[in-house]
Amino acid sequence: MHLAVIGGSDAGIAAALRAKEIDPAVKVSVLLADGFPNYSICGLPFVLSREVTDPTALAHRTREELESTGMELLINTTAREILPKDKRLVAVGQDGHEKRIGYDRLIVATGARPADTGIVGHTLPGVFYLHTMKDSFDIDRHIVETNARRAFIVGGGYIGLEMADALTLRGMEVTIASKTESVLPSVDPEFGRIVEEELRRHGVSVHVRTSVGSIYRSGRTLNVIDASGQNHATDMVVLATGVRPSSELARSAGIEPGHAGAIRVNRRMETNVADIFAAGDCVETWHRLLARSVYRPLGTTAHKQGRIAGENAAGGECQFAGTLGTQVLKVFELAIARTGLSEVEADQEGWKPATVESNMWDHKMYYPGAMPMHIRIVGDRSTGRILGAQIIGHWKSEVAKRIDIIATALFHGITAAGVNDLDLSYTPPLSSPWDPVQIAVQAWLNQHGK
Amino acid sequence: MHLAVIGGSDAGIAAALRAKEIDPAVKVSVLLADGFPNYSICGLPFVLSREVTDPTALAHRTREELESTGMELLINTTAREILPKDKRLVAVGQDGHEKRIGYDRLIVATGARPADTGIVGHTLPGVFYLHTMKDSFDIDRHIVETNARRAFIVGGGYIGLEMADALTLRGMEVTIASKTESVLPSVDPEFGRIVEEELRRHGVSVHVRTSVGSIYRSGRTLNVIDASGQNHATDMVVLATGVRPSSELARSAGIEPGHAGAIRVNRRMETNVADIFAAGDCVETWHRLLARSVYRPLGTTAHKQGRIAGENAAGGECQFAGTLGTQVLKVFELAIARTGLSEVEADQEGWKPATVESNMWDHKMYYPGAMPMHIRIVGDRSTGRILGAQIIGHWKSEVAKRIDIIATALFHGITAAGVNDLDLSYTPPLSSPWDPVQIAVQAWLNQHGK
Repeated sequence: MHLAVIGGSDAGIAAALRAKEIDPAVKVSVLLADGFPNYSICGLPFVLSREVTDPTALAHRTREELESTGMELLINTTAREILPKDKRLVAVGQDGHEKRIGYDRLIVATGARPADTGIVGHTLPGVFYLHTMKDSFDIDRHIVETNARRAFIVGGGYIGLEMADALTLRGMEVTIASKTESVLPSVDPEFGRIVEEELRRHGVSVHVRTSVGSIYRSGRTLNVIDASGQNHATDMVVLATGVRPSSELARSAGIEPGHAGAIRVNRRMETNVADIFAAGDCVETWHRLLARSVYRPLGTTAHKQGRIAGENAAGGECQFAGTLGTQVLKVFELAIARTGLSEVEADQEGWKPATVESNMWDHKMYYPGAMPMHIRIVGDRSTGRILGAQIIGHWKSEVAKRIDIIATALFHGITAAGVNDLDLSYTPPLSSPWDPVQIAVQAWLNQHGK
Repeated sequence: MHLAVIGGSDAGIAAALRAKEIDPAVKVSVLLADGFPNYSICGLPFVLSREVTDPTALAHRTREELESTGMELLINTTAREILPKDKRLVAVGQDGHEKRIGYDRLIVATGARPADTGIVGHTLPGVFYLHTMKDSFDIDRHIVETNARRAFIVGGGYIGLEMADALTLRGMEVTIASKTESVLPSVDPEFGRIVEEELRRHGVSVHVRTSVGSIYRSGRTLNVIDASGQNHATDMVVLATGVRPSSELARSAGIEPGHAGAIRVNRRMETNVADIFAAGDCVETWHRLLARSVYRPLGTTAHKQGRIAGENAAGGECQFAGTLGTQVLKVFELAIARTGLSEVEADQEGWKPATVESNMWDHKMYYPGAMPMHIRIVGDRSTGRILGAQIIGHWKSEVAKRIDIIATALFHGITAAGVNDLDLSYTPPLSSPWDPVQIAVQAWLNQHGK
């Protein structure tokens, strides 16, 4: 059996590794458009901040480690066409020559790419997206060669915020513009504003409700014109305005699109075409709470979907259990985490949601270093079920794994009262006898309890 | 309705607070043997280390905060007798006079006290237990007044280890003796030995498989004689050899004992005597996995049981959901956490357990400050169900809340494969796309997978 995988990032490599684990006899070939297999693209901001000094350290595994599993890596090889009837791929290799690659089963893991911003001037020199290793090299070279001191970031989502942190650490003067009411629209505005404070505290200039219409160059300076006509002079622009699925190759082979133009898959990660699976940022994602597919590209999800596609393609049997959109982000000293639905989202879905915010210390205040922690719990007033949570606190105060306690409960439909019943760990330097997440659900129960 | 509560520590105050929340009209009186209501006795080691400079900071709430709920606090008041037929208590108050206190419902929260060690010389000056505020004041005074430089700790459980850390921080030369194969017998010896290394790295002299027979004084020096006849000269001894339930008062009133002499309660925290509830370190505890009661005194459990006793006593209806023995401990730079059963315990209970240990980094190694993390997963080979876990790592690497992810899964009977399916949070500074707990369950599944 020959399994071909198009794409050598998180989903593609997870699929290839799992297929070899399930059945070492399967021949696995991974086609990879660039020369960086299995790279953690989530690490790119930390390369640009210079917190990571060696970009090759971003590889989850080295090429040698990957090849030692027996998989074949076809680097700098771009798939041009899928021919499902012939079970063949047409690809262009390193040497520029077209080649044909037969397969028994195929996994499409072509990822995503930056969405078209519609901003006039987005192709000017000094204007960048950040999506690939090459993008990060280009940005780095621009900063060094032009001695850029000022950066303007378009987009207040998690990549925009990580870049604001990274370029500030690098000593640049950073401005960020978000068209939303507050930065980080994946959390409530109350939390978005705490993040804005943290950005300003570190010298970042923050503009919300600000969309960018055009960029033009005058001499060495780039001018970013926002919707109100204000001109922001800068030395470079980073466009962090979201991604869209790279699904064209699949679509041209008759593979059906689903939500938001992403490849439609079932929970075995099968497309509508026999023996073709798909996984990662190019596919739609089953949402466990919504019980339907959405487009929610995330590294964690890509790894899981890839593993499932690989297992099923190699003759196994498993299903994707679904996403909750669980995420955490570090911005300067803060960690911001979320899982599940916001009140607005839950309301649209027909729940009877209510949000209660609580403020406490991350651990017993008498032990040195206690830091404030804020938790918002969204629960359903009819059933008492937890629907979502958001936590913000110092990045070293276990914000990330606290959201995961709620994510684990949510994943299994546990109520607010059920979270209060959990037997969680405690020592004064790290928590309180009721963990902050339990203090937060108690506050919710006191107002809306069942 | 008059609710009397005997005991003003974690369980007693939790009960009183909850009763006032459920029904503010209930009259609540709390009898307290000393003058320190609602003190975090888990904080005593940090007072002795001088990390906490003001011992009154250990109060979870001030006396004023407690009284503002409307509860009555009878400090320095010791209950001598419970008269269930008359629904009255006999107590001795601050003034030394006996008084009678009527009640409609009673909650017994008399806690625990150090178990008798049988060590000859345990009452000598300079030999201490650590269980109350007064004990910590006595130890502190001894160190200051005698200028004690050396401390000998008997017992390698969590209090012994916290004291070894605390007294080392205070500049003392510390020796610890544990009769067990390795320190911290609540985790596997493989992990106990990592803790021993950490102790030695900080200058603590560690003796395992070492029991202490007697202590004698010669001049200013205390001599600790271990079972092999070796003499350890020291300036003070701390006996950290476990506790037993303070259940005598209850027993003399006809309240039945259960496991290990602790008060028998049902899951509503009712004793066998009408209108008398009990909670905290004086009662037996329902174990969720074993489906029977054990004696497992812990602050987290005391708070939960107290809350449930208070709710039910005030006319509510709720049940204790059970313990998993979830615990975390900080020793110098390490956090050690555990939940559920060890392989040995699970085997005794008729499961088919297997343990797999994994070693990884707490977050992506390319981001600065990655620390090694060790995880042991105990799963049932027949069902794939997770039965327990232990984690050891740097105390700032989210060890505590990672054990809580497993504790949450375990609490709800989730399998190893189910933990792998969870949608957990990730950012390179705080985790990896598969969280360490998922990497650990994958390793378990690879060996014993279902």
